Order: sequence, then C-alpha cells, then structure tokens
Amino acid sequence: MEQKEIFNALAAIVGEDDVTIDPVELLAYASDASFLRASPIAVARPENKEEVAEILKFADENRVPITPRGAGTSYAGQSLAYNDAILIDFVKMDKILEINLKDRVVVVQPGVIYGELNEELRKHGYCFPPDPGSAIACTVGGMVGNNASGVRALKYGATIDHVLGLEVVLPGGKIIRTGGRVWKSSSGYNLTRLLVGSEGTLGVFTEIILKITPAPKYTAMIMPAFKEYNQGLEAATEIINAGILPSAMEILDDICIMVLNSALGEKEKLPQVGAVLFIEVDGSNEEVVKEEGEIIRDVCEKIGVQQIIYSTDPDRTEELWRLRHSLANLLAKVRGENMAINSIMDFAVPISQVPDAVKEVKGIASKYGRLMAAFGHIGDGNVHMGSAIDVADPKARETAVKFSREAAEAIIKKYGGTLSAEHGVGMAKSAFIMMEHEDTLELMRGIKRVFDPNNIMNPMVMGLTEIPKDEYVYMAGVR
Amino acid sequence: MEQKEIFNALAAIVGEDDVTIDPVELLAYASDASFLRASPIAVARPENKEEVAEILKFADENRVPITPRGAGTSYAGQSLAYNDAILIDFVKMDKILEINLKDRVVVVQPGVIYGELNEELRKHGYCFPPDPGSAIACTVGGMVGNNASGVRALKYGATIDHVLGLEVVLPGGKIIRTGGRVWKSSSGYNLTRLLVGSEGTLGVFTEIILKITPAPKYTAMIMPAFKEYNQGLEAATEIINAGILPSAMEILDDICIMVLNSALGEKEKLPQVGAVLFIEVDGSNEEVVKEEGEIIRDVCEKIGVQQIIYSTDPDRTEELWRLRHSLANLLAKVRGENMAINSIMDFAVPISQVPDAVKEVKGIASKYGRLMAAFGHIGDGNVHMGSAIDVADPKARETAVKFSREAAEAIIKKYGGTLSAEHGVGMAKSAFIMMEHEDTLELMRGIKRVFDPNNIMNPMVMGLTEIPKDEYVYMAGVR
Repeated sequence: MEQKEIFNALAAIVGEDDVTIDPVELLAYASDASFLRASPIAVARPENKEEVAEILKFADENRVPITPRGAGTSYAGQSLAYNDAILIDFVKMDKILEINLKDRVVVVQPGVIYGELNEELRKHGYCFPPDPGSAIACTVGGMVGNNASGVRALKYGATIDHVLGLEVVLPGGKIIRTGGRVWKSSSGYNLTRLLVGSEGTLGVFTEIILKITPAPKYTAMIMPAFKEYNQGLEAATEIINAGILPSAMEILDDICIMVLNSALGEKEKLPQVGAVLFIEVDGSNEEVVKEEGEIIRDVCEKIGVQQIIYSTDPDRTEELWRLRHSLANLLAKVRGENMAINSIMDFAVPISQVPDAVKEVKGIASKYGRLMAAFGHIGDGNVHMGSAIDVADPKARETAVKFSREAAEAIIKKYGGTLSAEHGVGMAKSAFIMMEHEDTLELMRGIKRVFDPNNIMNPMVMGLTEIPKDEYVYMAGVR
Repeated sequence: MEQKEIFNALAAIVGEDDVTIDPVELLAYASDASFLRASPIAVARPENKEEVAEILKFADENRVPITPRGAGTSYAGQSLAYNDAILIDFVKMDKILEINLKDRVVVVQPGVIYGELNEELRKHGYCFPPDPGSAIACTVGGMVGNNASGVRALKYGATIDHVLGLEVVLPGGKIIRTGGRVWKSSSGYNLTRLLVGSEGTLGVFTEIILKITPAPKYTAMIMPAFKEYNQGLEAATEIINAGILPSAMEILDDICIMVLNSALGEKEKLPQVGAVLFIEVDGSNEEVVKEEGEIIRDVCEKIGVQQIIYSTDPDRTEELWRLRHSLANLLAKVRGENMAINSIMDFAVPISQVPDAVKEVKGIASKYGRLMAAFGHIGDGNVHMGSAIDVADPKARETAVKFSREAAEAIIKKYGGTLSAEHGVGMAKSAFIMMEHEDTLELMRGIKRVFDPNNIMNPMVMGLTEIPKDEYVYMAGVR
C-alpha cells in the first residue's frame, strides 16, 4: 500500500496532527536501545481504544503490519517497524486512570511512564516494583509487552507477576478484556499472562490493571568488594542460605568496575577488584532491615571481603544505584559509537550454573579476541554480558555473529538457560529461538494465528513468521 | 470404541495390572469433591512419560477422550471422565525427582502428594507454599492443572506463581518441555503459565519444576471474634493498611461458627458472634513476627474485638488451622448426605467489593429460602459461600440452579468478580462461563484446537466444546 494512502486512512482516524510520514520524524522512531534500525511507513498517535480499534481494523483489512511502541527503550528491536509497518505511539494514552487503595490496584493506559507511575504510587505508600534499568523513560505498556523486570525482581517478581487484567484490541478491531481487578482467578486459560511478554504479536494493550505493593519504608545498601569474582558469587549464595531475600543483589566484574571507574571522580572510584556487589534489603520495619544488613555484612566478612560500603541513608543508596544503572550506557560507549553485543546480553541460567556459564562465555569471547563484561541480577540467575563491536564494520559484525551463536548454544544447551530473562527476544535474538523452543515454536505460531490470523501484529519478532539468518539480526531492517 | 478394545490397547501399554475396567473399581473413580458423578470407561496407571505418550497416541488416533486425574479432590468435576473417557491416574508417577537447593527448585512427577512434598522440603528448610484445603491428599499435578491455592496465597501467591517448567505430553504423543529451571524468562510466549490452570484440556503433565521458598521459621496466630461481620472485614482492611502482609487471613461468618461449634467440645467452642478471623503472620525473625502479631492485636482492639486468641506456639497454631480446614467438610454434612452448592462456592471479587457481594449473595439466597454460609480468604477477595441442598431432590436442585445463576450474575456483572478463584471451572461452573468470558471464550477454544486438534483432552470442562444447560451441571455425567 502507498504511504500516502496509509497517511490518509490514519489521518481520518486520529486526525492529521497525529500521523507522521515525514522522513525526518520517522527517523526518530527508527531505533530502539539495540543496534537495529528500521523506519516505519507511518506513525499514528491514537488517543483512545476506539481509535486503536479503527487502526487495527484498517491494518488488518489491508494487511499492513503493526508495531506497538512504548518509549523505544527495548534492547532487541521489538519496538521497530519492519517491512513498512505502521508504528503506534502511545504518547497520547499516558494517563493513570485510577489508583484504588482498597482494591490494591492501579489502572493505567499503556503510555504511562514507569517512573512517573511509581512517583504517584509512592505518595500513597505503594509501588509497582519491577524496576527496569530504563525506569525513568520506559512505559508500562512496553514493560507488559516485554515482561520487563530489573534489579528488584529477586524479591518482587517480574512484570508478569503484577498484571491482573488487560484491555486488548485484536487485529480487526475487536476489543476484549482479560482478567480484571480480582487478585486470584482459576477461571479459564490465563490469557493475561499469555499476553504479558507477547511483544506486540497478539494485540494492542489499551488498558492495564496492576497489583500495587506497599512501598518499603526502610532500605539498607551493602556494597562489598571481593578480590575474586567467585567470592562474589559465593557471597550471593550464602546470603540466600542465611534466609534473607534481598530486594536486589547485583554483581559487577572487573571490566564493569574498570568502565565505571573511568567515569567516576577520584574520590568515588570503586576498588579495582574481581567483583563488587550491590545488595539491598528493604522492609517496613527499621530494626529488621538493619539486622538483615548486619547479617549480610557478616557473611561477606567470613568470605574475606576487601572493602565494604554499608548505608541506610536513602540519598546515599539512591546515589549508589545511579552508579549501577549508568553501567549499561557506559559499556555501550566504550569505543565511541560502538554498541554492546545484544544477542546474548540478557540470558538467565539456573542459579547454580552462573559461575560456569559466565566463565564459559568469557572463554568463548576470548577465543574471538574479545573481552566480555559481566554484570547482573545474581540472585535470580540473570546475567548481562556485553562487549563492544563496531556494527558498521562487516568483519566485526561477522565475529559478533559467530561468537553470539556459540555463546547462546552453551547457555541454552549446556547450562539449561533462557535466551532472554527480561529484555525479550525481539528481532535481535530471534535467529537463536529454535535452540530454546524447538519443541514449542509451532505451538506459539498456532497461538499467534488464533489471535492474528492475517499475521499483521509485529510479525518479524520472536521467530513467529520466519527465523532470520544469524547475519540478519545484526543489520536488520535498515531502510 | 468398545470397552474391551480399550482395555486391550491400554494393557499393551501399561500392563494388565495397571488398567481397570471392573465396574466396581471404576466407581471409585466416578466422583470428586463435587456432587457430580461420571464413571470412566477405563482407568490406566502409567509409570513414565513414554507410557503416557503411547496412551495419548492411542486416544488421539481413536478419538477417545482423556481425563488426567490426581487425587480426585477437585471441587468442580474436572477430574471426572465424561462421555466414556479414559482416566489417567498418576498414582505410579508420584516421585520427587530432585530437590536442588542451589537452584532453589524441586522437580516432581505429577502424582506426588502436596503434603508429602512439603514434608520433604521442610527437612531442608524450604516449602511450596500455596496450601490448598486438601493439602494432605491432593497431588501437585492436580494443583498445577487447576492453579490451586489456599489460605497462604495472600502472601505467597497461587500455584501459577511457583511453576517454572513443565514436561507435557500432547495429544498424539509428542513430548514437549516449557520453561525450565530458570527463575525468570521473557523468551517467547509463556506456555508454562498458559498450561497452569488448563484443567487437563491441553495436555498431560509428566514432570513439574517448582520454585521452592524458604520455610518461615516463626509464626503467630491471631483469632479475633467480632460482634458484626463487617467489623471483621474492617479489621482485614486495617491490617493491610498498617503495612502488614499476613501469611493468611481468613474470615468465618455466624453460620460457619455455628457449624464449627456443633462439632467442637464445650471448652473449645468459639464465641457465637458475627465474625471470627484466622490471621497468621510468619517470617524468619522471631521478634518481627511477634511485633506484627501485636500490631494486629492493636488493630483488632481499636475496632472493638469481643475476644481474641493469640498464639505463637506452633502446635496450638496447627490445632487452630485444623479447625478452619475441617469447615468445608462440616458444611457439606449439615444435612446428612447433602452437599454444598458448588457453582458459586469459589468466587473472588475486587477486595473492596467483598462486603457488598457477600451481602447480596446472602440476600439472593434468602429469597429462595436458603441460608448461606460465608468464609474464605478475605485478604485477596476470595470468598467461599455454600448452602446445603439435597441433590437427589429435583425441586431442591431446580432452586439451586436458579439461585446459582442469579448469584453468579451478581458476582461477575455487578461486582467485577471471577467464577473461580482457586477451584477451577470444571463442569460445575461451565454453564456460567459466558458471563465472565464472553469476549474471550472463542480465543480459548482456538488455543485448545492448537494443542488438541481432535478435542480429546478433557473436552467437557470449561465450556470449551459446548456450554451445558444450567440444569445439567447439577447432575452431569451420571452413568
């Protein structure tokens, strides 16, 4: 279909001001936080579910692909528009519709920013805890689409554990509701949790009902530095064995520490050791939080910690977290314009397998002459590993492709891991999907056909239409 | 297909000793905890996944329906064999395959008894917390099939929140794996959580991987008695508002208290008031648990409690819980052989709607000349209401049918509730499924076709094949 025809159809639905086909404007929508690039044929900014329904009716009738997009902070290209797709931007559907303390739920539109939602909730003593790294920018719709999580998933779970109900527009324009504001249900298939993490391939969310959780009143932060990386891993295991469930437990390896230190002032620098952990405990009782902090300190000392920072001051804690959250961006900039290897940057393995899996992936990397940084949510087996490659250099790209396949194979086949713990498969990991889902990909494709018989919903992600060649995922969709 | 042919085919797979077609033995499989009755054409007791696969291949080729069955403690007829179905009994697949403390998972076969699993886990300081009323008898396979939960779901979630991976035999005999032993995944559709609560309609579980949770070291039990039912509800709200998440919070109304008292010795009797609550707090820190207990006591006193029992003694606590768990059976026996009305005994509404919904259902009941008892998991909006009817009396049945439809309509349409919070839809609630899932039943049916194109898997439940007449669900399947 011609771009101008699409423009006219969308303008008739959302108004001319809320459709874009200007190439420069489209370019602003052509990237996410991955290295993939794909420019949409048009962008529409609907204001309500009725407009979304009309867009999906038009798209379904004319077989124009649709990609829903939140803030575009995704790490795997799932919020990009491949093959002349229409992007739906939820910037005008960004309202908190209801905070209901009695039902302990919040009802939001998909475009609401996670950080802003939490700011509102905290005024009432509550929060929505998954806490992804992109907290200040990402939308709740995007989080639901990707089953996002972050440093606090260890104690509080991922997005999927907090979504009670959804309003969803299906291709063709039918509006359905799944779940509701009940906290428990065993009535029929759990379509809500099927839709969470479906990366825009089944329908478009127009309303989201979330559980809310009492915001912890007190926190303590413990930052131990260990000579050896494995001491850090041991500390993590021993803390859990001591009966403590930290709200966060993160590990940084020597490369991460080096990269962080290069950005820090002399006085702030971390000790250049094998592992630094960021451990947080929280709760509603100050004494308990302090006591748990002390137990963690004792565990670290027994293992032979070199240096330890301990703080119960919220401002200091926030400062330390900012440090940790700056890491992904710093790593991506190690070589100027280059970016991290995304295709294995988000794996999880069974908790006991973390040490060996990390070691093995580092070994594979060094075989290809690369240094890999490793950090992540050590408590739940979710590790981020990255290296810098110059995606503009075909040779570097070729190496990255080979390395990524080999590492993914080890993670999945040898260590029983998953391709994605929290970022989603998108396009960037779809070349490897058969390693993990050989048994079940056909079932997933069947489910997609039930929701989306004409295959217009984000058809290029998760390997649901076809599995791209390895090479393709490093340079997909560039128009 | 002839019964004898089925016998021969199954005997060739599992051996003659593990097939039953003897009418007397079949009668033992003809009931669950509901009032429904349906006798299978044959029962097979496979020993491993290969045998299950062969059974499902045979059944699929010959279009013989299959019902997987755990301990038969289901409350809605979902573990019964309608229309000459084969029952698969997992009594020979009852092993704990692995307790892995490092990965914090346990791997079990479906036939393992929940209570026995927890006994094993507690030896290692862990547990699998959902705690259904049938804990000592029900199987983990049945719990996963129904997304069972119980008094501890408020703090620890339902079964769906604890299942990490499944091995599943599909109709036709293909064996697949979903999820694994990773704690977090955003890779592909979450088939694991789609399968949890699917009531045997999509496939047969042959292996289940569960998260394990540190067993709480200390508990405190608070049993306040309030003059008015609404004071009990108010207490529940105020406790949550005080920032405490009890491990259990149950309410009993005056009828429940009367029924319990009729079974108790003079010294044990509860005060005959409007509401008695069973509130439990737990944790790994004795001081905190005690302190939370005190806060709850204060809240209750402010609301004007008449009498309060407080105990941190584990034996006394267990004794009190036995009291609470005996209630469902006592209610079912109020009139000799009669049973409770099952079709609305398991609803949930948004938490704030509990008082009005309970009042309304009681009002509808009294219009039909019936007294309704109300008890349940007040903290998460899951209420059990029941009355005694003589299912052998057509007139009483007719009344029950009318009453149930009217009550279900109010719960769903007026209060935004769900038909089933933890027991499943089965056959008993399937007449009402369109009230809740009008929008989505066709999607559910589509998903069933993807997994089970010949519709052999438990086809009579959840309204997935057809929606039975109201009358039918009170007398279904009697052969």
